Amino acid sequence: MILTVTLNTALDLTYGVPELVPHASHRVGDMAERPGGKGLNVARVLSALGQATVVTGFAGGSTGAVLRELLAQLAPQDMTGTGTRAAAAVAAVTPATTTPLSTPAPAPITDALVTVAGNTRRTIAVVDRATGDTTQLNEPGPLVTADEWAALLDRYEELLTGADAVALCGSLPPGIHVGAYAELIRPARAAGIPVLLDTSGEPLRRGIAARPDLIKPNAEELAQLTGSREPLRATHDARRRGAHGVIASLGPDGMLAVTPDGVWRASPPARVLGNPTGAGDSAVAGLLSGLVEGLSWPDRLRRAVALSTATVLSPTAGDFDRAAYEELLPGVDVEEHTAAA
Amino acid sequence: MILTVTLNTALDLTYGVPELVPHASHRVGDMAERPGGKGLNVARVLSALGQATVVTGFAGGSTGAVLRELLAQLAPQDMTGTGTRAAAAVAAVTPATTTPLSTPAPAPITDALVTVAGNTRRTIAVVDRATGDTTQLNEPGPLVTADEWAALLDRYEELLTGADAVALCGSLPPGIHVGAYAELIRPARAAGIPVLLDTSGEPLRRGIAARPDLIKPNAEELAQLTGSREPLRATHDARRRGAHGVIASLGPDGMLAVTPDGVWRASPPARVLGNPTGAGDSAVAGLLSGLVEGLSWPDRLRRAVALSTATVLSPTAGDFDRAAYEELLPGVDVEEHTAAA
Repeated sequence: MILTVTLNTALDLTYGVPELVPHASHRVGDMAERPGGKGLNVARVLSALGQATVVTGFAGGSTGAVLRELLAQLAPQDMTGTGTRAAAAVAAVTPATTTPLSTPAPAPITDALVTVAGNTRRTIAVVDRATGDTTQLNEPGPLVTADEWAALLDRYEELLTGADAVALCGSLPPGIHVGAYAELIRPARAAGIPVLLDTSGEPLRRGIAARPDLIKPNAEELAQLTGSREPLRATHDARRRGAHGVIASLGPDGMLAVTPDGVWRASPPARVLGNPTGAGDSAVAGLLSGLVEGLSWPDRLRRAVALSTATVLSPTAGDFDRAAYEELLPGVDVEEHTAAA
Repeated sequence: MILTVTLNTALDLTYGVPELVPHASHRVGDMAERPGGKGLNVARVLSALGQATVVTGFAGGSTGAVLRELLAQLAPQDMTGTGTRAAAAVAAVTPATTTPLSTPAPAPITDALVTVAGNTRRTIAVVDRATGDTTQLNEPGPLVTADEWAALLDRYEELLTGADAVALCGSLPPGIHVGAYAELIRPARAAGIPVLLDTSGEPLRRGIAARPDLIKPNAEELAQLTGSREPLRATHDARRRGAHGVIASLGPDGMLAVTPDGVWRASPPARVLGNPTGAGDSAVAGLLSGLVEGLSWPDRLRRAVALSTATVLSPTAGDFDRAAYEELLPGVDVEEHTAAA
């Protein structure tokens, strides 16, 4: 199974309004509610790809309870329990390889979140139905105590024993020290489990020093980290800072992968218009599922680019359009670079 | 006790942001969460005035559960049970008269809400901390079924037997027919219990026909109902449509009361600046507590105007500033009109 860690989970609300007018009153026309935070989004895509996933991180209060209820409805749950043994049992019945173009049955998402006393945050995306533009309101996360962090570390080390790969995703809630991701990367590396870090700012800078297998920054995060806006230079710089492999997502231009095995550039067959929310999370799911299935780098990148493009195209923010994904997949162009920076 | 009915309860969230910029992402700086819907706001003010209150209406789903938890924390609860007998017991120990200027202990608010299958709505007030301007987002209410409405009618008739006055407050959720308030006014009138209707649009128009004792429209609601923006003319017109007494709230100009006992205009000692959210609900609490305590019309109006002005002055939207209330009360000017329209 693949383990995803979301320290700052969220209940994501989407409100459709005809037009957002500051200082006016709005009736919300349509609304949706779903479990969020990057690692939960990654898990949803992994499940759709047929990859059994265990999610951990923090959830608490009444909003945390709603999040867990919705999470339980997302994918067929494993009924024998939660935690390592259940997750390992789930992983054991997942086929070792899947054909990229088949439509697998959704795989289970196992809830191994650690309960905290604070209330999980809500995020509200107010979508202007006339233009599709989104205004985002993000509540602060709950204050996590030292005891709750210790409980997460225990749960995480337990779950690692059944994991084929780990994704560490998103921002840190209040109370969690900025070097937290380094603490999570070390035991995974020690156990030989591939670990992908997808965060930004200081948590990314500090996490990289613990030498994760992969990071997946976008152009903005990469520039913040390295000071360079030239993708190839910045990507090589990020590797020198400690990341074994760097997959830079270049938005509509696809991805640039600088890895110990080579350098590739992967581009979608065409530029598409749509909502980029969640495209990065779909890319993480594509990279990790490809890794676990033993695909080559070019095939992993093809999957990641096709998934993130199909997410931009989906009418529901953060979901991917499966038909578009299957159509896009063979058309993704992957080119190997021979020059080193 | 005073019974307040809120068919479309809400969990009211307030988000403070430095500035609301459409299509940008915002971190919410400060947030507050409280039980809302007009009748719950009225109950909160009544409790602060020392008046035992029972609240009914609908609540459901996870948001309804949070609302009821917060409601339970608002005021000392009656521990012997809920419903009519408990409420009557509470009412029995409330002093029959209180001196307007004394600070009474908060009286209990008894939760007699009817549980529905749908999820109670949230409302979000995004407050621009630079200017104090508010952008409002209101979720749609839950769809209420015919069986749930029948259960509310049963609960309401039970509660009426212990009530000294009734307030019917706010909008109607989906599924509730537009003549619903008329159905609630008739049994109260038949039992000789004074009933105040505070709503707008078609529910107000249809409710008035059932001859409530009081309505409390603002200038906008009155103009919508009667087609006239001239307060005295519109208020007399509203009486002819069926309301026994009409208390028109004229914002910073105070109130105009046209009743079977006379016509009065009540004005605050000075115009104040602040947030008018909840000022109307405070006025309803002032009118009803004064009625139950047997105050004269001028004293009821004095209390209603002082409370609503003290609500505008409060730093927290919808609460009233008690010190301001006690200072304003003796300064409210009440003038009797002798001319009829």
